[in-house]
Amino acid sequence: MTEARFAAQVPMRWSDLDDYGHLNNARAVTLLEEARIAFLWTAKAESAGTSFRGGLLVAGLNVEYRHQVNYRTGRTLRVAMAIDEVRAASFRILYDVHDGPDAEDRVAIRAWTRMALFDMDAQRPRRLSAAEKDYLAGFAEATG
Amino acid sequence: MTEARFAAQVPMRWSDLDDYGHLNNARAVTLLEEARIAFLWTAKAESAGTSFRGGLLVAGLNVEYRHQVNYRTGRTLRVAMAIDEVRAASFRILYDVHDGPDAEDRVAIRAWTRMALFDMDAQRPRRLSAAEKDYLAGFAEATG
Amino acid sequence: MTEARFAAQVPMRWSDLDDYGHLNNARAVTLLEEARIAFLWTAKAESAGTSFRGGLLVAGLNVEYRHQVNYRTGRTLRVAMAIDEVRAASFRILYDVHDGPDAEDRVAIRAWTRMALFDMDAQRPRRLSAAEKDYLAGFAEATG
Amino acid sequence: MTEARFAAQVPMRWSDLDDYGHLNNARAVTLLEEARIAFLWTAKAESAGTSFRGGLLVAGLNVEYRHQVNYRTGRTLRVAMAIDEVRAASFRILYDVHDGPDAEDRVAIRAWTRMALFDMDAQRPRRLSAAEKDYLAGFAEATG
Repeated sequence: MTEARFAAQVPMRWSDLDDYGHLNNARAVTLLEEARIAFLWTAKAESAGTSFRGGLLVAGLNVEYRHQVNYRTGRTLRVAMAIDEVRAASFRILYDVHDGPDAEDRVAIRAWTRMALFDMDAQRPRRLSAAEKDYLAGFAEATG
Repeated sequence: MTEARFAAQVPMRWSDLDDYGHLNNARAVTLLEEARIAFLWTAKAESAGTSFRGGLLVAGLNVEYRHQVNYRTGRTLRVAMAIDEVRAASFRILYDVHDGPDAEDRVAIRAWTRMALFDMDAQRPRRLSAAEKDYLAGFAEATG
Repeated sequence: MTEARFAAQVPMRWSDLDDYGHLNNARAVTLLEEARIAFLWTAKAESAGTSFRGGLLVAGLNVEYRHQVNYRTGRTLRVAMAIDEVRAASFRILYDVHDGPDAEDRVAIRAWTRMALFDMDAQRPRRLSAAEKDYLAGFAEATG
Repeated sequence: MTEARFAAQVPMRWSDLDDYGHLNNARAVTLLEEARIAFLWTAKAESAGTSFRGGLLVAGLNVEYRHQVNYRTGRTLRVAMAIDEVRAASFRILYDVHDGPDAEDRVAIRAWTRMALFDMDAQRPRRLSAAEKDYLAGFAEATG
Protein backbone atom coordinates (compact mmCIF):
# COMPACT_ATOMS: atom_id res chain seq x y z
CA MET A 1 0.00 0.00 0.00
CA THR A 2 0.96 3.62 -0.35
CA GLU A 3 1.80 6.05 2.42
CA ALA A 4 -1.74 7.41 2.19
CA ARG A 5 -3.11 4.55 4.24
CA PHE A 6 -4.80 5.01 7.60
CA ALA A 7 -3.73 2.66 10.40
CA ALA A 8 -6.06 1.65 13.24
CA GLN A 9 -5.16 -0.32 16.36
CA VAL A 10 -7.86 -2.92 16.95
CA PRO A 11 -7.90 -4.94 20.19
CA MET A 12 -8.61 -8.66 19.99
CA ARG A 13 -10.82 -10.25 22.61
CA TRP A 14 -10.14 -13.62 24.16
CA SER A 15 -13.57 -14.79 23.02
CA ASP A 16 -12.60 -14.03 19.41
CA LEU A 17 -10.71 -17.30 19.59
CA ASP A 18 -12.63 -20.39 18.58
CA ASP A 19 -12.22 -24.00 19.60
CA TYR A 20 -9.23 -24.29 17.22
CA GLY A 21 -7.43 -21.76 19.45
CA HIS A 22 -7.05 -19.10 16.73
CA LEU A 23 -8.84 -15.92 15.75
CA ASN A 24 -12.16 -17.11 14.35
CA ASN A 25 -12.69 -16.29 10.66
CA ALA A 26 -15.95 -14.41 11.30
CA ARG A 27 -14.54 -12.49 14.26
CA ALA A 28 -11.79 -11.31 11.93
CA VAL A 29 -14.55 -9.69 9.88
CA THR A 30 -15.72 -7.91 13.05
CA LEU A 31 -12.18 -6.58 13.46
CA LEU A 32 -12.36 -5.17 9.92
CA GLU A 33 -15.58 -3.45 10.94
CA GLU A 34 -13.96 -1.90 14.01
CA ALA A 35 -11.01 -0.77 11.90
CA ARG A 36 -13.14 1.05 9.34
CA ILE A 37 -15.21 2.70 12.07
CA ALA A 38 -11.97 4.05 13.56
CA PHE A 39 -11.11 5.26 10.06
CA LEU A 40 -14.36 6.81 8.84
CA TRP A 41 -16.59 7.59 11.82
CA THR A 42 -14.32 10.20 13.32
CA ALA A 43 -14.70 13.84 14.26
CA LYS A 44 -12.04 14.62 11.68
CA ALA A 45 -13.96 12.86 8.92
CA GLU A 46 -17.20 14.54 9.96
CA SER A 47 -15.67 18.01 10.14
CA ALA A 48 -14.58 17.41 6.53
CA GLY A 49 -18.25 17.15 5.60
CA THR A 50 -18.68 13.38 5.47
CA SER A 51 -21.56 11.48 7.06
CA PHE A 52 -20.55 7.86 6.79
CA ARG A 53 -21.89 7.05 10.23
CA GLY A 54 -25.43 7.55 9.07
CA GLY A 55 -25.37 4.50 6.86
CA LEU A 56 -22.47 2.65 5.32
CA LEU A 57 -23.38 -0.88 4.32
CA VAL A 58 -21.08 -3.73 3.35
CA ALA A 59 -22.12 -4.77 -0.14
CA GLY A 60 -19.19 -7.09 -0.78
CA LEU A 61 -16.40 -8.69 1.21
CA ASN A 62 -13.25 -10.57 0.29
CA VAL A 63 -10.82 -11.97 2.82
CA GLU A 64 -7.55 -13.82 2.33
CA TYR A 65 -6.53 -15.55 5.57
CA ARG A 66 -2.77 -15.95 5.19
CA HIS A 67 -1.64 -16.86 8.69
CA GLN A 68 -3.46 -17.94 11.82
CA VAL A 69 -3.67 -15.26 14.48
CA ASN A 70 -3.05 -16.23 18.10
CA TYR A 71 -3.94 -14.38 21.27
CA ARG A 72 -1.75 -12.48 23.69
CA THR A 73 -3.23 -10.52 26.58
CA GLY A 74 -3.63 -6.88 25.74
CA ARG A 75 -2.35 -7.12 22.21
CA THR A 76 -3.87 -4.97 19.50
CA LEU A 77 -3.69 -5.67 15.78
CA ARG A 78 -2.61 -2.97 13.36
CA VAL A 79 -5.02 -2.58 10.46
CA ALA A 80 -3.74 -0.42 7.61
CA MET A 81 -6.43 0.82 5.22
CA ALA A 82 -6.63 2.51 1.85
CA ILE A 83 -9.41 3.38 -0.59
CA ASP A 84 -9.99 2.42 -4.21
CA GLU A 85 -12.78 2.03 -6.78
CA VAL A 86 -14.69 5.15 -5.74
CA ARG A 87 -17.96 5.13 -7.69
CA ALA A 88 -21.12 7.24 -7.58
CA ALA A 89 -22.62 5.40 -4.60
CA SER A 90 -19.91 3.04 -3.40
CA PHE A 91 -16.19 2.57 -2.77
CA ARG A 92 -13.80 -0.11 -1.63
CA ILE A 93 -11.71 -0.23 1.53
CA LEU A 94 -8.51 -2.30 1.39
CA TYR A 95 -7.22 -3.78 4.64
CA ASP A 96 -3.90 -5.21 5.75
CA VAL A 97 -4.33 -6.81 9.18
CA HIS A 98 -0.98 -7.19 10.92
CA ASP A 99 -0.34 -9.89 13.48
CA GLY A 100 0.50 -7.30 16.15
CA PRO A 101 0.57 -3.54 16.70
CA ASP A 102 3.51 -2.61 14.47
CA ALA A 103 3.96 -2.03 10.77
CA GLU A 104 6.76 -4.60 10.91
CA ASP A 105 4.42 -7.34 12.22
CA ARG A 106 3.55 -9.64 9.39
CA VAL A 107 0.33 -9.23 7.45
CA ALA A 108 -1.85 -12.14 8.56
CA ILE A 109 -5.06 -11.13 6.78
CA ARG A 110 -5.61 -9.15 3.59
CA ALA A 111 -9.13 -8.05 2.74
CA TRP A 112 -11.38 -5.60 0.98
CA THR A 113 -14.95 -4.51 1.51
CA ARG A 114 -17.18 -2.76 -1.00
CA MET A 115 -19.12 -0.12 0.91
CA ALA A 116 -22.49 1.20 -0.27
CA LEU A 117 -23.86 4.50 0.96
CA PHE A 118 -27.33 4.16 2.41
CA ASP A 119 -29.74 6.69 3.81
CA MET A 120 -31.09 4.91 6.88
CA ASP A 121 -33.91 7.44 7.39
CA ALA A 122 -35.17 7.20 3.83
CA GLN A 123 -34.18 3.52 3.63
CA ARG A 124 -32.60 3.85 0.23
CA PRO A 125 -29.14 4.03 -1.35
CA ARG A 126 -27.58 7.44 -1.74
CA ARG A 127 -24.70 8.98 -3.72
CA LEU A 128 -21.36 10.05 -2.33
CA SER A 129 -21.18 13.79 -1.80
CA ALA A 130 -18.34 15.85 -3.29
CA ALA A 131 -16.93 16.32 0.23
CA GLU A 132 -16.95 12.58 0.79
CA LYS A 133 -15.16 11.92 -2.49
CA ASP A 134 -12.55 14.50 -1.56
CA TYR A 135 -12.04 12.93 1.83
CA LEU A 136 -11.64 9.45 0.42
CA ALA A 137 -9.24 10.72 -2.25
CA GLY A 138 -6.79 11.48 0.53
CA PHE A 139 -6.47 7.75 1.18
CA ALA A 140 -6.45 6.58 -2.41
CA GLU A 141 -4.50 3.47 -3.15
CA ALA A 142 -1.95 4.17 -5.85
CA THR A 143 -2.29 1.49 -8.46
CA GLY A 144 -0.64 1.04 -11.80
CA MET B 1 -26.84 -24.34 -8.38
CA THR B 2 -27.39 -27.95 -9.34
CA GLU B 3 -29.59 -30.47 -7.59
CA ALA B 4 -26.48 -31.85 -5.87
CA ARG B 5 -26.51 -29.07 -3.32
CA PHE B 6 -26.93 -29.63 0.41
CA ALA B 7 -29.37 -27.34 2.24
CA ALA B 8 -29.02 -26.44 5.90
CA GLN B 9 -31.49 -24.54 8.06
CA VAL B 10 -29.58 -21.98 10.12
CA PRO B 11 -31.36 -20.05 12.90
CA MET B 12 -30.70 -16.33 13.23
CA ARG B 13 -30.30 -14.83 16.67
CA TRP B 14 -31.74 -11.48 17.67
CA SER B 15 -28.26 -10.33 18.66
CA ASP B 16 -27.09 -10.98 15.08
CA LEU B 17 -28.79 -7.68 14.29
CA ASP B 18 -26.65 -4.60 14.61
CA ASP B 19 -27.59 -1.02 15.32
CA TYR B 20 -28.78 -0.64 11.71
CA GLY B 21 -31.48 -3.24 12.51
CA HIS B 22 -30.27 -5.79 9.95
CA LEU B 23 -28.22 -8.96 10.02
CA ASN B 24 -24.68 -7.77 10.73
CA ASN B 25 -22.20 -8.50 7.93
CA ALA B 26 -19.82 -10.41 10.20
CA ARG B 27 -22.61 -12.41 11.83
CA ALA B 28 -23.62 -13.49 8.34
CA VAL B 29 -20.17 -15.08 8.11
CA THR B 30 -20.92 -16.96 11.34
CA LEU B 31 -24.09 -18.27 9.69
CA LEU B 32 -21.97 -19.58 6.80
CA GLU B 33 -19.83 -21.36 9.40
CA GLU B 34 -22.86 -22.97 11.00
CA ALA B 35 -24.16 -24.03 7.60
CA ARG B 36 -20.96 -25.78 6.56
CA ILE B 37 -20.72 -27.53 9.95
CA ALA B 38 -24.22 -28.90 9.37
CA PHE B 39 -23.00 -30.01 5.93
CA LEU B 40 -19.61 -31.54 6.66
CA TRP B 41 -19.37 -32.44 10.37
CA THR B 42 -22.08 -35.07 10.27
CA ALA B 43 -22.25 -38.73 11.17
CA LYS B 44 -23.04 -39.42 7.51
CA ALA B 45 -19.92 -37.60 6.33
CA GLU B 46 -17.79 -39.34 8.94
CA SER B 47 -19.11 -42.79 8.14
CA ALA B 48 -18.06 -42.07 4.55
CA GLY B 49 -14.48 -41.83 5.81
CA THR B 50 -14.09 -38.06 6.05
CA SER B 51 -12.57 -36.24 9.00
CA PHE B 52 -13.31 -32.59 8.34
CA ARG B 53 -14.10 -31.88 11.96
CA GLY B 54 -10.48 -32.40 12.94
CA GLY B 55 -9.34 -29.28 11.14
CA LEU B 56 -10.94 -27.36 8.32
CA LEU B 57 -9.66 -23.81 8.09
CA VAL B 58 -11.05 -20.93 6.10
CA ALA B 59 -8.27 -19.79 3.77
CA GLY B 60 -10.38 -17.43 1.71
CA LEU B 61 -13.83 -15.86 1.86
CA ASN B 62 -15.96 -13.93 -0.58
CA VAL B 63 -19.40 -12.57 0.22
CA GLU B 64 -21.87 -10.68 -1.92
CA TYR B 65 -24.53 -9.04 0.25
CA ARG B 66 -27.47 -8.60 -2.11
CA HIS B 67 -30.33 -7.77 0.20
CA GLN B 68 -30.55 -6.79 3.84
CA VAL B 69 -31.83 -9.54 6.10
CA ASN B 70 -34.33 -8.67 8.80
CA TYR B 71 -35.34 -10.61 11.88
CA ARG B 72 -38.47 -12.56 12.63
CA THR B 73 -38.81 -14.60 15.81
CA GLY B 74 -38.00 -18.22 15.22
CA ARG B 75 -37.10 -17.86 11.57
CA THR B 76 -34.33 -19.94 10.10
CA LEU B 77 -32.44 -19.16 6.93
CA ARG B 78 -31.98 -21.78 4.23
CA VAL B 79 -28.37 -22.12 3.13
CA ALA B 80 -27.85 -24.19 0.00
CA MET B 81 -24.28 -25.37 -0.56
CA ALA B 82 -22.24 -26.98 -3.31
CA ILE B 83 -18.56 -27.80 -3.84
CA ASP B 84 -16.09 -26.75 -6.51
CA GLU B 85 -12.35 -26.30 -7.09
CA VAL B 86 -11.30 -29.46 -5.28
CA ARG B 87 -7.48 -29.44 -5.10
CA ALA B 88 -4.88 -31.57 -3.30
CA ALA B 89 -5.32 -29.84 0.04
CA SER B 90 -8.27 -27.48 -0.38
CA PHE B 91 -11.69 -27.01 -1.88
CA ARG B 92 -14.36 -24.33 -2.17
CA ILE B 93 -17.84 -24.28 -0.70
CA LEU B 94 -20.46 -22.18 -2.52
CA TYR B 95 -23.34 -20.78 -0.47
CA ASP B 96 -26.74 -19.35 -1.34
CA VAL B 97 -28.29 -17.85 1.80
CA HIS B 98 -32.02 -17.48 1.43
CA ASP B 99 -34.00 -14.85 3.29
CA GLY B 100 -36.14 -17.50 4.96
CA PRO B 101 -36.49 -21.27 5.28
CA ASP B 102 -37.70 -22.11 1.79
CA ALA B 103 -36.04 -22.60 -1.57
CA GLU B 104 -38.46 -20.00 -2.91
CA ASP B 105 -37.27 -17.33 -0.46
CA ARG B 106 -34.99 -14.94 -2.28
CA VAL B 107 -31.23 -15.34 -2.14
CA ALA B 108 -30.05 -12.48 0.08
CA ILE B 109 -26.39 -13.47 0.32
CA ARG B 110 -24.15 -15.35 -2.08
CA ALA B 111 -20.73 -16.47 -0.88
CA TRP B 112 -17.87 -18.89 -1.17
CA THR B 113 -15.17 -20.02 1.20
CA ARG B 114 -11.92 -21.72 0.28
CA MET B 115 -11.33 -24.44 2.88
CA ALA B 116 -7.85 -25.76 3.71
CA LEU B 117 -7.35 -29.10 5.39
CA PHE B 118 -5.26 -28.82 8.53
CA ASP B 119 -3.99 -31.43 10.95
CA MET B 120 -4.56 -29.74 14.31
CA ASP B 121 -2.49 -32.32 16.22
CA ALA B 122 0.54 -31.98 13.94
CA GLN B 123 -0.21 -28.29 13.34
CA ARG B 124 0.35 -28.52 9.61
CA PRO B 125 -1.66 -28.62 6.39
CA ARG B 126 -2.73 -32.01 5.10
CA ARG B 127 -4.03 -33.46 1.83
CA LEU B 128 -7.57 -34.52 1.13
CA SER B 129 -7.99 -38.29 1.35
CA ALA B 130 -9.51 -40.27 -1.51
CA ALA B 131 -12.61 -40.84 0.61
CA GLU B 132 -12.94 -37.13 1.21
CA LYS B 133 -12.63 -36.35 -2.49
CA ASP B 134 -15.30 -38.92 -3.23
CA TYR B 135 -17.60 -37.46 -0.64
CA LEU B 136 -17.19 -33.93 -1.95
CA ALA B 137 -17.73 -35.09 -5.53
CA GLY B 138 -21.31 -35.93 -4.57
CA PHE B 139 -21.96 -32.22 -4.10
CA ALA B 140 -20.01 -30.94 -7.07
CA GLU B 141 -21.26 -27.79 -8.67
CA ALA B 142 -21.87 -28.43 -12.33
CA THR B 143 -20.13 -25.73 -14.29
CA GLY B 144 -19.72 -25.52 -17.99
CA MET C 1 -40.16 -25.93 38.53
CA THR C 2 -43.86 -26.44 38.08
CA GLU C 3 -45.66 -27.83 35.07
CA ALA C 4 -46.46 -24.25 34.04
CA ARG C 5 -43.03 -23.74 32.58
CA PHE C 6 -42.37 -22.99 28.92
CA ALA C 7 -39.59 -24.94 27.22
CA ALA C 8 -37.58 -23.57 24.30
CA GLN C 9 -35.07 -25.44 22.13
CA VAL C 10 -32.03 -23.21 21.63
CA PRO C 11 -29.31 -24.22 19.15
CA MET C 12 -25.68 -23.77 20.18
CA ARG C 13 -23.19 -22.49 17.64
CA TRP C 14 -19.68 -23.82 17.29
CA SER C 15 -18.34 -20.32 17.83
CA ASP C 16 -20.08 -20.22 21.23
CA LEU C 17 -17.17 -22.34 22.41
CA ASP C 18 -14.17 -20.47 23.72
CA ASP C 19 -10.51 -21.41 23.86
CA TYR C 20 -11.27 -23.67 26.87
CA GLY C 21 -13.43 -25.79 24.53
CA HIS C 22 -16.69 -25.20 26.43
CA LEU C 23 -19.71 -22.97 26.06
CA ASN C 24 -18.41 -19.49 26.88
CA ASN C 25 -20.01 -17.92 29.95
CA ALA C 26 -21.18 -14.82 28.06
CA ARG C 27 -22.52 -16.83 25.13
CA ALA C 28 -24.62 -18.74 27.65
CA VAL C 29 -26.27 -15.40 28.44
CA THR C 30 -27.03 -14.99 24.73
CA LEU C 31 -28.73 -18.40 24.84
CA LEU C 32 -30.92 -17.15 27.70
CA GLU C 33 -31.85 -14.20 25.50
CA GLU C 34 -32.82 -16.47 22.62
CA ALA C 35 -34.86 -18.65 24.99
CA ARG C 36 -36.89 -15.75 26.38
CA ILE C 37 -37.52 -14.38 22.87
CA ALA C 38 -38.94 -17.78 21.91
CA PHE C 39 -41.07 -17.57 25.05
CA LEU C 40 -42.38 -14.00 24.98
CA TRP C 41 -42.08 -12.59 21.45
CA THR C 42 -44.56 -14.99 19.91
CA ALA C 43 -47.76 -14.60 17.94
CA LYS C 44 -49.53 -16.37 20.79
CA ALA C 45 -48.22 -13.91 23.37
CA GLU C 46 -49.11 -10.97 21.16
CA SER C 47 -52.61 -12.19 20.43
CA ALA C 48 -53.07 -12.31 24.21
CA GLY C 49 -52.50 -8.55 24.26
CA THR C 50 -48.85 -8.41 25.30
CA SER C 51 -46.23 -6.22 23.64
CA PHE C 52 -42.97 -7.43 25.10
CA ARG C 53 -41.16 -7.13 21.80
CA GLY C 54 -41.40 -3.37 21.88
CA GLY C 55 -39.02 -3.08 24.81
CA LEU C 56 -38.04 -5.59 27.43
CA LEU C 57 -34.76 -4.71 29.10
CA VAL C 58 -32.60 -6.88 31.32
CA ALA C 59 -32.29 -5.02 34.63
CA GLY C 60 -30.65 -7.84 36.56
CA LEU C 61 -29.05 -11.20 35.82
CA ASN C 62 -27.93 -14.09 37.94
CA VAL C 63 -26.34 -17.24 36.55
CA GLU C 64 -25.15 -20.39 38.29
CA TYR C 65 -22.86 -22.37 35.99
CA ARG C 66 -23.13 -25.92 37.36
CA HIS C 67 -21.57 -28.03 34.62
CA GLN C 68 -19.51 -27.21 31.57
CA VAL C 69 -21.41 -27.53 28.31
CA ASN C 70 -19.70 -29.17 25.35
CA TYR C 71 -20.58 -29.05 21.67
CA ARG C 72 -22.13 -31.66 19.42
CA THR C 73 -23.09 -30.86 15.84
CA GLY C 74 -26.73 -29.97 15.55
CA ARG C 75 -27.54 -30.25 19.23
CA THR C 76 -30.03 -27.90 20.79
CA LEU C 77 -30.29 -27.10 24.48
CA ARG C 78 -33.62 -27.27 26.27
CA VAL C 79 -34.35 -24.14 28.28
CA ALA C 80 -37.31 -24.42 30.65
CA MET C 81 -38.66 -21.09 31.89
CA ALA C 82 -41.08 -19.85 34.52
CA ILE C 83 -42.09 -16.44 35.90
CA ASP C 84 -41.95 -14.99 39.39
CA GLU C 85 -41.79 -11.64 41.22
CA VAL C 86 -44.24 -9.85 38.95
CA ARG C 87 -44.21 -6.17 39.98
CA ALA C 88 -45.76 -3.00 38.53
CA ALA C 89 -43.05 -2.54 35.89
CA SER C 90 -40.88 -5.64 36.07
CA PHE C 91 -40.85 -9.41 36.51
CA ARG C 92 -38.36 -12.23 36.75
CA ILE C 93 -37.79 -15.10 34.34
CA LEU C 94 -36.30 -18.30 35.80
CA TYR C 95 -34.28 -20.54 33.49
CA ASP C 96 -33.13 -24.14 33.65
CA VAL C 97 -30.71 -24.80 30.79
CA HIS C 98 -30.42 -28.50 30.08
CA ASP C 99 -27.29 -30.02 28.58
CA GLY C 100 -29.26 -31.35 25.59
CA PRO C 101 -32.74 -31.29 24.07
CA ASP C 102 -34.61 -33.43 26.61
CA ALA C 103 -36.14 -32.79 30.01
CA GLU C 104 -34.03 -35.71 31.25
CA ASP C 105 -30.75 -34.04 30.21
CA ARG C 106 -29.10 -32.62 33.27
CA VAL C 107 -29.48 -28.97 34.18
CA ALA C 108 -26.10 -27.41 33.40
CA ILE C 109 -27.03 -23.78 34.02
CA ARG C 110 -29.61 -22.22 36.31
CA ALA C 111 -30.37 -18.52 35.96
CA TRP C 112 -32.80 -15.70 36.39
CA THR C 113 -33.19 -12.33 34.73
CA ARG C 114 -35.14 -9.38 36.06
CA MET C 115 -36.94 -7.82 33.10
CA ALA C 116 -37.99 -4.17 33.03
CA LEU C 117 -40.66 -2.92 30.66
CA PHE C 118 -39.47 -0.02 28.56
CA ASP C 119 -41.22 2.11 25.98
CA MET C 120 -38.57 2.43 23.27
CA ASP C 121 -40.47 5.18 21.43
CA ALA C 122 -40.89 7.34 24.50
CA GLN C 123 -37.57 6.17 25.92
CA ARG C 124 -38.93 5.61 29.39
CA PRO C 125 -39.99 2.74 31.65
CA ARG C 126 -43.58 1.62 31.49
CA ARG C 127 -45.95 -0.50 33.59
CA LEU C 128 -47.14 -3.98 32.82
CA SER C 129 -50.64 -4.00 31.35
CA ALA C 130 -53.38 -6.15 32.87
CA ALA C 131 -53.21 -8.42 29.82
CA GLU C 132 -49.49 -8.85 30.30
CA LYS C 133 -49.90 -9.72 33.96
CA ASP C 134 -52.54 -12.28 33.04
CA TYR C 135 -50.30 -13.82 30.43
CA LEU C 136 -47.34 -14.09 32.78
CA ALA C 137 -49.56 -15.58 35.49
CA GLY C 138 -49.98 -18.63 33.28
CA PHE C 139 -46.30 -19.41 33.77
CA ALA C 140 -46.05 -18.54 37.44
CA GLU C 141 -43.53 -20.44 39.45
CA ALA C 142 -45.22 -22.07 42.41
CA THR C 143 -43.28 -21.17 45.51
CA GLY C 144 -44.00 -21.87 49.13
CA MET D 1 -14.80 0.18 46.53
CA THR D 2 -11.48 0.69 48.25
CA GLU D 3 -8.33 2.14 46.77
CA ALA D 4 -7.04 -1.42 46.26
CA ARG D 5 -9.10 -1.85 43.13
CA PHE D 6 -7.60 -2.52 39.69
CA ALA D 7 -8.97 -0.50 36.80
CA ALA D 8 -9.02 -1.78 33.22
CA GLN D 9 -9.94 0.16 30.09
CA VAL D 10 -12.18 -2.02 27.93
CA PRO D 11 -13.09 -0.93 24.38
CA MET D 12 -16.69 -1.37 23.22
CA ARG D 13 -17.35 -2.55 19.70
CA TRP D 14 -20.09 -1.19 17.51
CA SER D 15 -21.48 -4.70 17.12
CA ASP D 16 -21.90 -4.90 20.92
CA LEU D 17 -25.00 -2.79 20.35
CA ASP D 18 -28.19 -4.68 19.73
CA ASP D 19 -31.33 -3.70 17.86
CA TYR D 20 -32.38 -1.55 20.85
CA GLY D 21 -29.32 0.62 20.14
CA HIS D 22 -27.64 -0.04 23.52
CA LEU D 23 -24.90 -2.28 24.81
CA ASN D 24 -26.40 -5.77 24.68
CA ASN D 25 -26.75 -7.44 28.08
CA ALA D 26 -24.71 -10.49 27.06
CA ARG D 27 -21.99 -8.42 25.40
CA ALA D 28 -21.64 -6.60 28.72
CA VAL D 29 -20.68 -9.96 30.20
CA THR D 30 -17.99 -10.28 27.52
CA LEU D 31 -16.67 -6.88 28.65
CA LEU D 32 -16.41 -8.23 32.20
CA GLU D 33 -14.39 -11.13 30.80
CA GLU D 34 -12.03 -8.79 28.99
CA ALA D 35 -11.64 -6.70 32.15
CA ARG D 36 -10.67 -9.63 34.36
CA ILE D 37 -8.21 -10.92 31.74
CA ALA D 38 -6.53 -7.50 31.81
CA PHE D 39 -6.47 -7.82 35.61
CA LEU D 40 -5.33 -11.40 36.17
CA TRP D 41 -3.60 -12.71 33.02
CA THR D 42 -0.71 -10.29 33.18
CA ALA D 43 3.05 -10.66 33.30
CA LYS D 44 2.94 -8.96 36.70
CA ALA D 45 0.44 -11.50 38.05
CA GLU D 46 2.43 -14.38 36.63
CA SER D 47 5.76 -13.16 37.99
CA ALA D 48 4.04 -13.14 41.39
CA GLY D 49 3.57 -16.90 41.02
CA THR D 50 -0.05 -17.05 39.86
CA SER D 51 -1.29 -19.16 36.97
CA PHE D 52 -4.84 -17.98 36.42
CA ARG D 53 -4.53 -18.16 32.67
CA GLY D 54 -4.34 -21.93 32.76
CA GLY D 55 -7.93 -22.28 33.86
CA LEU D 56 -10.23 -19.84 35.59
CA LEU D 57 -13.88 -20.73 35.15
CA VAL D 58 -16.92 -18.61 35.87
CA ALA D 59 -18.98 -20.56 38.40
CA GLY D 60 -21.43 -17.78 39.17
CA LEU D 61 -22.38 -14.40 37.77
CA ASN D 62 -24.52 -11.54 39.00
CA VAL D 63 -25.11 -8.35 37.05
CA GLU D 64 -27.08 -5.25 37.94
CA TYR D 65 -27.74 -3.16 34.81
CA ARG D 66 -28.30 0.34 36.20
CA HIS D 67 -28.11 2.52 33.12
CA GLN D 68 -28.14 1.81 29.40
CA VAL D 69 -24.75 2.20 27.74
CA ASN D 70 -24.57 3.95 24.39
CA TYR D 71 -21.80 3.91 21.80
CA ARG D 72 -19.30 6.56 20.86
CA THR D 73 -16.51 5.85 18.38
CA GLY D 74 -13.30 4.97 20.11
CA ARG D 75 -14.64 5.12 23.64
CA THR D 76 -13.43 2.70 26.24
CA LEU D 77 -15.24 1.80 29.43
CA ARG D 78 -13.44 1.91 32.77
CA VAL D 79 -13.92 -1.29 34.76
CA ALA D 80 -12.77 -1.10 38.39
CA MET D 81 -12.29 -4.48 40.08
CA ALA D 82 -11.71 -5.80 43.57
CA ILE D 83 -11.61 -9.25 45.19
CA ASP D 84 -13.63 -10.79 47.99
CA GLU D 85 -14.76 -14.20 49.32
CA VAL D 86 -11.44 -15.95 48.74
CA ARG D 87 -11.99 -19.66 49.48
CA ALA D 88 -9.89 -22.80 49.02
CA ALA D 89 -10.68 -23.17 45.33
CA SER D 90 -12.61 -20.04 44.36
CA PHE D 91 -12.92 -16.29 44.81
CA ARG D 92 -15.15 -13.46 43.70
CA ILE D 93 -14.33 -10.51 41.47
CA LEU D 94 -16.40 -7.35 41.95
CA TYR D 95 -16.83 -5.04 38.98
CA ASP D 96 -17.90 -1.42 38.57
CA VAL D 97 -18.35 -0.67 34.87
CA HIS D 98 -18.24 3.05 34.21
CA ASP D 99 -20.03 4.63 31.29
CA GLY D 100 -16.75 6.02 29.92
CA PRO D 101 -13.01 5.98 30.57
CA ASP D 102 -12.86 8.03 33.76
CA ALA D 103 -13.46 7.31 37.42
CA GLU D 104 -15.92 10.20 37.39
CA ASP D 105 -18.06 8.60 34.66
CA ARG D 106 -21.12 7.10 36.25
CA VAL D 107 -21.28 3.42 37.13
CA ALA D 108 -23.65 1.91 34.59
CA ILE D 109 -23.19 -1.75 35.51
CA ARG D 110 -22.30 -3.39 38.81
CA ALA D 111 -21.44 -7.07 38.82
CA TRP D 112 -19.62 -9.93 40.44
CA THR D 113 -18.34 -13.26 39.19
CA ARG D 114 -17.43 -16.27 41.29
CA MET D 115 -14.28 -17.75 39.77
CA ALA D 116 -13.33 -21.42 40.20
CA LEU D 117 -9.79 -22.62 39.65
CA PHE D 118 -9.61 -25.45 37.17
CA ASP D 119 -6.71 -27.54 35.92
CA MET D 120 -7.43 -27.76 32.19
CA ASP D 121 -4.80 -30.48 31.62
CA ALA D 122 -6.12 -32.73 34.37
CA GLN D 123 -9.71 -31.56 33.75
CA ARG D 124 -10.46 -31.10 37.42
CA PRO D 125 -10.84 -28.30 39.96
CA ARG D 126 -7.75 -27.19 41.85
CA ARG D 127 -6.97 -25.17 44.96
CA LEU D 128 -5.60 -21.66 45.05
CA SER D 129 -1.86 -21.62 45.77
CA ALA D 130 -0.43 -19.53 48.60
CA ALA D 131 1.10 -17.19 46.03
CA GLU D 132 -2.28 -16.75 44.37
CA LYS D 133 -3.98 -15.97 47.69
CA ASP D 134 -1.28 -13.41 48.44
CA TYR D 135 -1.72 -11.79 45.06
CA LEU D 136 -5.48 -11.56 45.41
CA ALA D 137 -5.15 -10.16 48.94
CA GLY D 138 -3.59 -7.06 47.42
CA PHE D 139 -6.95 -6.27 45.81
CA ALA D 140 -9.17 -7.23 48.70
CA GLU D 141 -12.42 -5.35 49.04
CA ALA D 142 -12.62 -3.81 52.49
CA THR D 143 -15.95 -4.79 53.96
CA GLY D 144 -17.42 -4.20 57.36
